[in-house]
Amino acid sequence: MNQPLTVDLNCDMGESFGAYRLGHDAAILPYVTSANIACGFHAGDPAVMRQTVRLALQHQVAIGAHPGLPDLVGFGRREMAVSPQEAYDLVVYQMGALGGFLTAEGGKLHHVKPHGALYNMAAVNAPLAEAIAEAAYRVNPELVLYGLAGSELTKAGTRIGLRVAHEVFADRTYQPDGTLTSRRLPDALLTTAEEAARQVVRMVKEGTVRAQQGSDVAIRADTICLHGDGAHALEFARHIHQTLQSQGISLQATFSKAAQ
Amino acid sequence: MNQPLTVDLNCDMGESFGAYRLGHDAAILPYVTSANIACGFHAGDPAVMRQTVRLALQHQVAIGAHPGLPDLVGFGRREMAVSPQEAYDLVVYQMGALGGFLTAEGGKLHHVKPHGALYNMAAVNAPLAEAIAEAAYRVNPELVLYGLAGSELTKAGTRIGLRVAHEVFADRTYQPDGTLTSRRLPDALLTTAEEAARQVVRMVKEGTVRAQQGSDVAIRADTICLHGDGAHALEFARHIHQTLQSQGISLQATFSKAAQ
Amino acid sequence: MNQPLTVDLNCDMGESFGAYRLGHDAAILPYVTSANIACGFHAGDPAVMRQTVRLALQHQVAIGAHPGLPDLVGFGRREMAVSPQEAYDLVVYQMGALGGFLTAEGGKLHHVKPHGALYNMAAVNAPLAEAIAEAAYRVNPELVLYGLAGSELTKAGTRIGLRVAHEVFADRTYQPDGTLTSRRLPDALLTTAEEAARQVVRMVKEGTVRAQQGSDVAIRADTICLHGDGAHALEFARHIHQTLQSQGISLQATFSKAAQ
Amino acid sequence: MNQPLTVDLNCDMGESFGAYRLGHDAAILPYVTSANIACGFHAGDPAVMRQTVRLALQHQVAIGAHPGLPDLVGFGRREMAVSPQEAYDLVVYQMGALGGFLTAEGGKLHHVKPHGALYNMAAVNAPLAEAIAEAAYRVNPELVLYGLAGSELTKAGTRIGLRVAHEVFADRTYQPDGTLTSRRLPDALLTTAEEAARQVVRMVKEGTVRAQQGSDVAIRADTICLHGDGAHALEFARHIHQTLQSQGISLQATFSKAAQ
Repeated sequence: MNQPLTVDLNCDMGESFGAYRLGHDAAILPYVTSANIACGFHAGDPAVMRQTVRLALQHQVAIGAHPGLPDLVGFGRREMAVSPQEAYDLVVYQMGALGGFLTAEGGKLHHVKPHGALYNMAAVNAPLAEAIAEAAYRVNPELVLYGLAGSELTKAGTRIGLRVAHEVFADRTYQPDGTLTSRRLPDALLTTAEEAARQVVRMVKEGTVRAQQGSDVAIRADTICLHGDGAHALEFARHIHQTLQSQGISLQATFSKAAQ
Repeated sequence: MNQPLTVDLNCDMGESFGAYRLGHDAAILPYVTSANIACGFHAGDPAVMRQTVRLALQHQVAIGAHPGLPDLVGFGRREMAVSPQEAYDLVVYQMGALGGFLTAEGGKLHHVKPHGALYNMAAVNAPLAEAIAEAAYRVNPELVLYGLAGSELTKAGTRIGLRVAHEVFADRTYQPDGTLTSRRLPDALLTTAEEAARQVVRMVKEGTVRAQQGSDVAIRADTICLHGDGAHALEFARHIHQTLQSQGISLQATFSKAAQ
Repeated sequence: MNQPLTVDLNCDMGESFGAYRLGHDAAILPYVTSANIACGFHAGDPAVMRQTVRLALQHQVAIGAHPGLPDLVGFGRREMAVSPQEAYDLVVYQMGALGGFLTAEGGKLHHVKPHGALYNMAAVNAPLAEAIAEAAYRVNPELVLYGLAGSELTKAGTRIGLRVAHEVFADRTYQPDGTLTSRRLPDALLTTAEEAARQVVRMVKEGTVRAQQGSDVAIRADTICLHGDGAHALEFARHIHQTLQSQGISLQATFSKAAQ
Repeated sequence: MNQPLTVDLNCDMGESFGAYRLGHDAAILPYVTSANIACGFHAGDPAVMRQTVRLALQHQVAIGAHPGLPDLVGFGRREMAVSPQEAYDLVVYQMGALGGFLTAEGGKLHHVKPHGALYNMAAVNAPLAEAIAEAAYRVNPELVLYGLAGSELTKAGTRIGLRVAHEVFADRTYQPDGTLTSRRLPDALLTTAEEAARQVVRMVKEGTVRAQQGSDVAIRADTICLHGDGAHALEFARHIHQTLQSQGISLQATFSKAAQ
């Protein structure tokens, strides 16, 4: 008998800050199996972190740290020339900070996924990827490291002894080499929930994605990133969630036992 | 046979930031039994925290979190109208962040001591003190809470079930009601290492301090705060350390087993 | 022949930050005669400041600096124990920063209005009020200082030689001594645009406001603060603007020549 | 009769922050003719800016804005992927902020010199250089733009209509193409005041610098950067100042009338 197909749906959360609201965390949570919570550098603040941890625990999703560059005004999306040591330090700091709220609320950290420019740099910069993987490993060797499918980050995680989750994107288009189409180009995004769901189902069932140019590319999809902000976030989340279930694909956080 | 007298010598550490150096951590560490490490809000940054944790572990002192108000430019010394909930959140965050480095380095958090204006506000504001004590307790009920001797903070810590350490100051003068002389007044500080050592010995041996006005005041001295910056920090630390030892007072972190 | 009645309608603007949007600046601008632009400490960032200056210039409203405490996460609403010297420094800094964008865009600074906790502290703390007035005066003695009607801030402004604008609030209720009802109390806010417009008309025409307790209090209303965020901001702004005009009250920035 | 040779000696100043001291501004000021004052992003704070402006005015040196990237913990030395528009905005903001203190103290802004990574990026990135030059020009077209000799920044300044000052470094070594030896390489720095003075005199008198590899390179030296921190800053400043004077080279800020 075959192992049933499973996949994780993750979403970045807790990206509000002070008086500023961002995202639709409470509305999205019913449709995801893991939440990546911002840790106060690119977004989030201590109050938002506590509230988001509580919310995520109520929804029984797997909770991950979502550390970013120290660039609040740029939302962590601008590359910065941080050294591997600096990347290590800022990941340990932010994982620890989120861990404080998890301990206080009786929860456990399940994974780590770097944010924005840190994620992108770690996908292609091996020493930076090593530093981030080492940070995660030293804080807790049981954690799962989420990184771009096939990236330097997932390689570094495997090398150091972490379990890794290869991440794919529901609403981003792909290039023939398996990388994401740059957001600066047109057609970087799929615009309908139907297209996104279709792409996701193929990734999970067949391990391939149709590149923008028409060819099929092999891709490993352990976890699917949904976007939590934007006008259509909720619609996409709901539709993708339903489509996966209707296709008999089990939704659960990577390396966890409980399926939704 | 009598229990030998013991006391803890603590010092605030890790208060450098980026390109800026502050304090003489490495030079002071041989003379103290516990280190309170800044957590990035009033001072400190992730790199400084990692380095200071390593240094403190090498010197085998007890390590505490030293959370402050989010006021780097004011060094956490300006009172801010933070609510108890906000105080709770910023203490959990900072304790967690430091805890990340401790875990990564194989160490353990021993205590928490709020910094500057947060310490002063928590000494007199019961709801704020409760919130800080609760933050410490929820992160780890085994921690020791350091607070001004006889303050609302030590009361709140006891109430919630934490072990508390009543803190006294080696080089500050006292008022007849047991409070510290305000730094804005002349004679707030003892100016020689000899006076400071004398004050400390009386506090530990007799449980009293001579107030500025001449009367003796009862005071409980579980831990003595030494200052780590300033021209004479090292001289004071060395002299006080030697004097206490020569008086047969054992130096060890509060509630720890290992005496120096 | 009587001088026609005139009043200024002001609104805080430019309070977005990085990826975060706040307020409805473009929608509100047609209904106000002066805009107080955040300067990057409690809200706003350089890009938002440039955009807001341009927008305000397009709408030909008087532009003011809206300096706040260095507390982004608290939106400048938490009192901080800043010294008068610190208040002076942070007001000069923020006025200068906004002035940079005004010069670059060919505009001129018309007024200064402190934000949030700085505004509230300056209303009752004379040395702080003096320091803020002095900052404004030294940057430009031609500026208008906006402060709570009858406060220490307007007094300090007058004393130092600035022109001052006594500010009243359209949607806040008042106490018999002319102060605002604390936001922590119920009934601090008027809930309908009609009530707010009625209160405003009386303030301008009769120089009185009905206190919550029923008595009438004398009040000087040079400028009326409208709120730019919240669900009903636009409705309130439009209704108050129309009501004032229909009552023959001319709308123009304080000490300016051009009426709307 | 020949025009006497003149050159400007500049130094970065006002780089203290809050409780943190950096540099020896008061000791260095007698030896320089222009001061570049940090504006609060990479270093400096409002109090430090006010104090440094006063000090510079007392010493009658030309005052420049020294804007940096928003990276206090990295001291503005880490490259960040800021867009030209973002660079424009952060330069206008910081120039304006410093301008506030200059106006308040009765001084005038003389020049602008970007700091650290912003300076380095602007030396080679033409669109970024254009944006910075435009920011300076729009705030005040009379300003002098200081940039690396022969860089994209000085070219952009000339193109937009600003006066520019080509900057050379007293204690840095050069490559055959006229660029600075990377700080990551050995021999990036001259280690004695005598060598530095010798290099500076040749640059001013002969318009050449001996590259590390032995060849001579043409270089334009309008202004010489001295370092204000480090153990030997004062010794270097004094020696270079004396050597230039003893060689009959007049010291004065670029495009100013008053020689020292």
